[in-house]
Amino acid sequence: MDLSHPERLSATDAARAVASGALSAEQLVQACLERIREVEPAVQAWQYLDEAHALAQARARDADRAEGRPIGPLHGVPVGIKDIIDTADMPTEDGTVLHAGRTPARDAAVVAQLRAAGAVVLGKTVTTELATYAPGKTRNPHDATRSPGGSSSGSAAAVAAGMVPLAVGTQSNASVIRPAAYCGVYGFKPSYGLISRHGVLKLSPSLDAVGVFARTLDDVALLAEQITGFDENDPVTRPHARLPFVQTLAAAPPLPPKLAFVKTPMWERTEPGTREAFSELVEALGASCEEVALPDSLAEAWEWHRTIMEAEMALHLDLEYERGRDKLSAPLQQQLARGREISALAYQRALGRLPRLLDGFDELFAKFDALVAPATTGTAPPLASTGDPVFGTLWTLAGMPALAMPLMHGADGLPLGAQLVGRRGDDMRLLRTARWLQMQLDT
Amino acid sequence: MDLSHPERLSATDAARAVASGALSAEQLVQACLERIREVEPAVQAWQYLDEAHALAQARARDADRAEGRPIGPLHGVPVGIKDIIDTADMPTEDGTVLHAGRTPARDAAVVAQLRAAGAVVLGKTVTTELATYAPGKTRNPHDATRSPGGSSSGSAAAVAAGMVPLAVGTQSNASVIRPAAYCGVYGFKPSYGLISRHGVLKLSPSLDAVGVFARTLDDVALLAEQITGFDENDPVTRPHARLPFVQTLAAAPPLPPKLAFVKTPMWERTEPGTREAFSELVEALGASCEEVALPDSLAEAWEWHRTIMEAEMALHLDLEYERGRDKLSAPLQQQLARGREISALAYQRALGRLPRLLDGFDELFAKFDALVAPATTGTAPPLASTGDPVFGTLWTLAGMPALAMPLMHGADGLPLGAQLVGRRGDDMRLLRTARWLQMQLDT
Repeated sequence: MDLSHPERLSATDAARAVASGALSAEQLVQACLERIREVEPAVQAWQYLDEAHALAQARARDADRAEGRPIGPLHGVPVGIKDIIDTADMPTEDGTVLHAGRTPARDAAVVAQLRAAGAVVLGKTVTTELATYAPGKTRNPHDATRSPGGSSSGSAAAVAAGMVPLAVGTQSNASVIRPAAYCGVYGFKPSYGLISRHGVLKLSPSLDAVGVFARTLDDVALLAEQITGFDENDPVTRPHARLPFVQTLAAAPPLPPKLAFVKTPMWERTEPGTREAFSELVEALGASCEEVALPDSLAEAWEWHRTIMEAEMALHLDLEYERGRDKLSAPLQQQLARGREISALAYQRALGRLPRLLDGFDELFAKFDALVAPATTGTAPPLASTGDPVFGTLWTLAGMPALAMPLMHGADGLPLGAQLVGRRGDDMRLLRTARWLQMQLDT
Repeated sequence: MDLSHPERLSATDAARAVASGALSAEQLVQACLERIREVEPAVQAWQYLDEAHALAQARARDADRAEGRPIGPLHGVPVGIKDIIDTADMPTEDGTVLHAGRTPARDAAVVAQLRAAGAVVLGKTVTTELATYAPGKTRNPHDATRSPGGSSSGSAAAVAAGMVPLAVGTQSNASVIRPAAYCGVYGFKPSYGLISRHGVLKLSPSLDAVGVFARTLDDVALLAEQITGFDENDPVTRPHARLPFVQTLAAAPPLPPKLAFVKTPMWERTEPGTREAFSELVEALGASCEEVALPDSLAEAWEWHRTIMEAEMALHLDLEYERGRDKLSAPLQQQLARGREISALAYQRALGRLPRLLDGFDELFAKFDALVAPATTGTAPPLASTGDPVFGTLWTLAGMPALAMPLMHGADGLPLGAQLVGRRGDDMRLLRTARWLQMQLDT
């Protein structure tokens, strides 16, 4: 392991180096902070970062080790946290001036779990306005004229720019998948209910999910393993044994996986470069991958998602709308106004579609290990927009686990992601299939 | 045990007599059918009753015993089933001509549980229109000019008239408590989620609950014990061990219970006779019972209930409204029209009130074992109405267990019920407290 540039290490290698004593947490964090000083002026991934506080955490982790206290799986490893996820020691401002200076009294459940695993909470990463569509200041690390995607803009960009090996984000539509794909890193949104949302800005509780960013699949597994689990404060989580993501990733699949390439009813929105790239990908996979047509009627699912999301946003951002409407972006104002007009009948109807939607996918997963779909319509768009979320919608609505994989590039040389989607609840099989896919394409 | 009038036995005694061989199931069912022939012309409690089929079930139970097969806790005991609860061997018409001739393919979960316990499903009892407010044909067994209450009209009346020792009903507002009180029997609506609603007409899934009717508290416990439990087809049920209601009822409370008499913000709606009766009841209980004022702000809870119930009814009775509106009663048409106008925002807001509402009651239950409240505004009203549901609303909304107890009479000599309400989830403590209360008043 080359320790001359600790900031370039994967989280897995960094954790190993800190655990063995080959590297101190302080050296690791110091190297990340240096990298940040170098590239942050161009990328603008951080909403809050107190170097002294980060280093103090690192030194405390080093003291743990020196004094023989237990070492967690992320001991000394820095993690970036999206600024809609509460931290007791840093502000959490939700990407809106309406929440400027907001200082939560406690850590969100995921932050507490990360600290328990020994991680250094490096700082807060930029979010779009209230985790919706109006961009923050962050730029794409591959091209400063392009968007990093949203809403977890800073988390994706910080990982892609080598500032931090790991970051946490959230997704209610495509807010993990899209920025991961635009920035060329892995982005994993687990099954609905796998990670507690307690202490995370509520936008649409029927859709909201916490997700993770990393530069390697092993790192995705390492981070996800620390933050999944039951939390009595989030009623959609369920008691279950800790999911051994890392171990699962190391094991070979019992049978060679079968993949279904699904264009989804939104395929028309893809750019020509995306179509080409996917046609090459499917060809490279040969007999392992079969194109499967999803029913056209599924196009309604995007409308169900909009109904649920806007109706629930109208409730959970009601105070912001009532008291500070003029401080919200015009598109968000319009979205909230629309949400207030949705009837309880339409809202319940949309929610009522989910069981049958999942039954339909279950049939597919009897035959296939995972679905391959676009992650985005194309490569990162210009800064004015965070890009089209259309390829995140369906899997978020259905609560299915989804992984953005940085497998391709567009004609403009920018990263283009593929999205691997698993059966709801089968997150470990999804990651194991992703590892297999990666190895297929490497050979 | 006097076996000369088997139809007069409690379910507990009848089950014992059948198990011991002192009485055959056929004799028991035959006696109930004779009683029905006698009083049904006046009471009109049954929507469907096939004597031959009832007797065939009874003979099959007798054959079980004769041939040494296992005997269930309700072996050979006849039970009436509200006609919104599916039965595979009888029609289930939901109290509306729109569902005339409806023949479900399978039993509701509670019916399957009753059969597994050895019960004889005697027949289907009259419900109001779609379990809402428009009366069916049933009359109060104590006075044929009065209402039996609703919506579980036939279940309450059949038990009160001695036609059957046990019956099952449902409640989304006051549909178990109110008819039980008007008819002078016990009515028990357990905690939300304790009994599966699978196979029961869906009206308002956030409120709908299955409940039971009996002439004794032991019989309430015996019946409730057979039908509580987890059902994967009803997502609000939870896995738990079988609740030993019968055994709990036989045990003395660890400490003398403390009761809180709560008038609720709707006390003004009570009739003078009700006020008098409660003042006597509270006096009789002396130091065991303390009057506790609930906050006036709680009056809003009735509006939350209305919002939730009407919004959910608009969804679940949408087909009836869209295709058969003119076959619905005018008040139900109006109710469904109102439900369609409710916004998703108002609906979610109402649902969002529940956690704090329950927290407030939890404080009360730290000090008291149960709350005593009116079950109805007064004795049974004339037949044109099923009576005011106002004293069922709050406890249904909060999902708290409630028991109508036939403790008093009005100035008109008709039954007047008290309602005992427990902490959500503490159903066994509620029944044990009811037994204690009964014994206090008997001495």
